[in-house]
Amino acid sequence: MAPVKNGRHLFNEIPVGYPIPGKTTVYDDSQTIDLDTVQLNGGILIKALAFSIDPYMRGMMRPATVKSYVPAYTIGKPLGNSGVGVVLRSENSSFKPGDHVYAYFPFQEYIVQTDVANVRVLENKENLPWSTYVGAAGMPGQTAYIGWKVFSKAKKGETVFVTTGAGPVGSIVAQLAKHDGLKVIASAGSDEKVEFMKKIGVDVAFNYKTTDTVKVLEEHGPIDIYWDNVGGATLEAALDAASNFARFIECGMISQYNETSPYGVKNLWNIITKRLSVNGFLVLDHMAPESTKDFYDTVPAMIAKGDIVFLEDKKYGLEKVGEAILDVQSGKNHGKSVIVVAEE
Amino acid sequence: MAPVKNGRHLFNEIPVGYPIPGKTTVYDDSQTIDLDTVQLNGGILIKALAFSIDPYMRGMMRPATVKSYVPAYTIGKPLGNSGVGVVLRSENSSFKPGDHVYAYFPFQEYIVQTDVANVRVLENKENLPWSTYVGAAGMPGQTAYIGWKVFSKAKKGETVFVTTGAGPVGSIVAQLAKHDGLKVIASAGSDEKVEFMKKIGVDVAFNYKTTDTVKVLEEHGPIDIYWDNVGGATLEAALDAASNFARFIECGMISQYNETSPYGVKNLWNIITKRLSVNGFLVLDHMAPESTKDFYDTVPAMIAKGDIVFLEDKKYGLEKVGEAILDVQSGKNHGKSVIVVAEE
Repeated sequence: MAPVKNGRHLFNEIPVGYPIPGKTTVYDDSQTIDLDTVQLNGGILIKALAFSIDPYMRGMMRPATVKSYVPAYTIGKPLGNSGVGVVLRSENSSFKPGDHVYAYFPFQEYIVQTDVANVRVLENKENLPWSTYVGAAGMPGQTAYIGWKVFSKAKKGETVFVTTGAGPVGSIVAQLAKHDGLKVIASAGSDEKVEFMKKIGVDVAFNYKTTDTVKVLEEHGPIDIYWDNVGGATLEAALDAASNFARFIECGMISQYNETSPYGVKNLWNIITKRLSVNGFLVLDHMAPESTKDFYDTVPAMIAKGDIVFLEDKKYGLEKVGEAILDVQSGKNHGKSVIVVAEE
Repeated sequence: MAPVKNGRHLFNEIPVGYPIPGKTTVYDDSQTIDLDTVQLNGGILIKALAFSIDPYMRGMMRPATVKSYVPAYTIGKPLGNSGVGVVLRSENSSFKPGDHVYAYFPFQEYIVQTDVANVRVLENKENLPWSTYVGAAGMPGQTAYIGWKVFSKAKKGETVFVTTGAGPVGSIVAQLAKHDGLKVIASAGSDEKVEFMKKIGVDVAFNYKTTDTVKVLEEHGPIDIYWDNVGGATLEAALDAASNFARFIECGMISQYNETSPYGVKNLWNIITKRLSVNGFLVLDHMAPESTKDFYDTVPAMIAKGDIVFLEDKKYGLEKVGEAILDVQSGKNHGKSVIVVAEE
C-alpha cells in the first residue's frame, strides 16, 4: 500500500500566558507512513482514535530546564497525552491487531510504539464508546476516583466543596461524594455548567463568575472536604470556610497556570488553627496495576449503569488540538475535552 | 494568718500589632487572699511557682466574638497559660499538700482550683527544676515530641528545616531529628541563637536576619521535612526547596501574628507538583493521658541524661509578664520564656 499522510500536532513555542492555537502549537501534515512496511522493532503499530486534552498540559509547555513532575514538551516535536487507539500490526505477543489500547501517546494519526510497558489493552466489557476511556474511564476518572478514595476520608453527612464541578474530574468527584452520602457544594464558570451540576445531584451548584464564592460557603458551609482544581482566591475562601480537621485535596490550580503574577494566599494560618490536612496529589503516582485494578473493575460498570454521567466536548481532527487546549485553559469547554482522531 | 497580697497580671485591652506592656496587659496587686480560710469547695489551693509564656498567647488577645481554637482572654481578668505550682491545701483525695501540679492556670500568685480534671501531679523522678515542666518537659516539649512523632514520618538520612531552631519547640525538634539520624538545617534571629543551635548539633545553623533563607535552602536542601513556626516568606522558601513527598508540619506562623496585612504565599502550586503533605497541628489535640504518657516516660529522662538540652529565659515576678510576652512576640527571648512567680 502506498504511504499515507501521518498528521501531527507539534509544540512550536513556549507561551507567555494563554497558549495560542497556530502559534504555541501547530498542525503539521508533512509526514507520511507506510502502514504495511514501517519497521516495528518488536513493537506495535497503532491507529489513534481519541486523545485527551487536559489542564496539566499547560505545565509541559515550558523550557526543558525548568523541573516539574512531568517532562517538558520538546519544540518541533508532537505534543502528547493519554489516548486510545486500535492495534493495526503487532510484533509483541501481548497485543494483536484489533486490540484497543490506552497509554500516553504522541499526538499523531499513526504511532509506532516499541516501549509497550505502560500500554494497557482495554477490555471494555460494557461496550462504552472508546472516547470514554480517555475521560470518565480514563485519567480524569482515575484522578477523581483514586484521589477521593485515598485522601477524602469522607464520612456520610459531611459537606464537600468541589471546584470545576462540571469538569471531567470535578463532576465525577461530585457524583462519588453524593454516592457516599455527602452534601455537595460545587462551582463552575457558566449557567449551563450549573444546570449540568444540578442534574448530577449537586446540592448547591453555583456560577462563581456571577455568585460570590465566599458568601456561598458562609451560607452552606462549613466544609469538611475541599477538592481544589483552581487555587488562588477560591482556595483562600475554602480555608476560611473549612471546619476543624477538614481535608484539602490539592489536585489542580487552573486559576494560576496562565498567570504571570500568581495570587498570594493570605490566610494559611487556618491550616494550624483548624488542624487542616492539605495534600497534593497527582494521579501519576497511583497508576500501578494494583491501584488501577479497582478503578477499572468499578468505574466503567458505574458508567454503564448510569451511576456516573458525564459530558464530552469532542473536537474532530488533530488540527483542533490548539483550540481544544485553549478552551480547557480558559474554561470554555463543556465537559471532558477529547480530540477524535478517527472513527473505526 | 492575716490575708496576703495575691498579685495578678490582667488582660487590659485588645492590641493592634505588638502587645504593649502596661497597656495591653497590666499587673494588679489590689487583691488579697487568706490562705488558711479561703473556701476551696472541694478543690485545691495552689501557690504558683512558674508560668509559661508562649507565642500562641497573642491569639487569645482578641475580641471574644472572633472564633479560634483557644478561648479569648477577658478584659479585666487575669491572663492564663500553663504553669507549675505547689499544693498548699486540698479537699480532694487525689492531691495532698506538697504535691507539685501542672495545668492551665490564671496568672496569679495563689489559685483556688475547683475543676481539677486537667490538673496533673508531677512525679519528677529525675528531680528536674520545676520550671522545666513548663518548657522542655511541658507544652513546648510536648509540641515538639508529639508533632515530630505523629507527622514527620522521618527517615534516617533525610533533611529537615526547622524554624525558630533555638526556641523552646524548635530546639527540641532539632535534637529529636538529630537523634533520628537526619541532617538538620535550622534558622533563628540572632548570632547568639545560631551559636546555641550549633551546640545542640544543628548541621546548618543560620541567622535569617543576615543570611538569605532561600540561598541556604538552595545550597543545603532539598528538604524532606519542614517544621514551620514562622509562616510567610519562610514558608514560601520552604515550598520552593521541598523535595517530592515532603511533609510540612505547620505548628506556628509567628511572622504573621502581629501583621495587620498578612503575607500572601504565591507558590502553593508546589503542594501539587511535589505531592506535599501539609498538616496543621495543635498540641491541645494530643493531651489525652494516652498521648502524653509516652512523653512523660521519655522526655524528662532524656533531659536528665543530657540528650535534650535547652535554654530558659527566666523573668522574676508576675510584674514582668507583659515584657516577657513582647519579647516572645518579637523574638528577643533567649530560650524558653518562663515567669518565675516564687521559689519554694
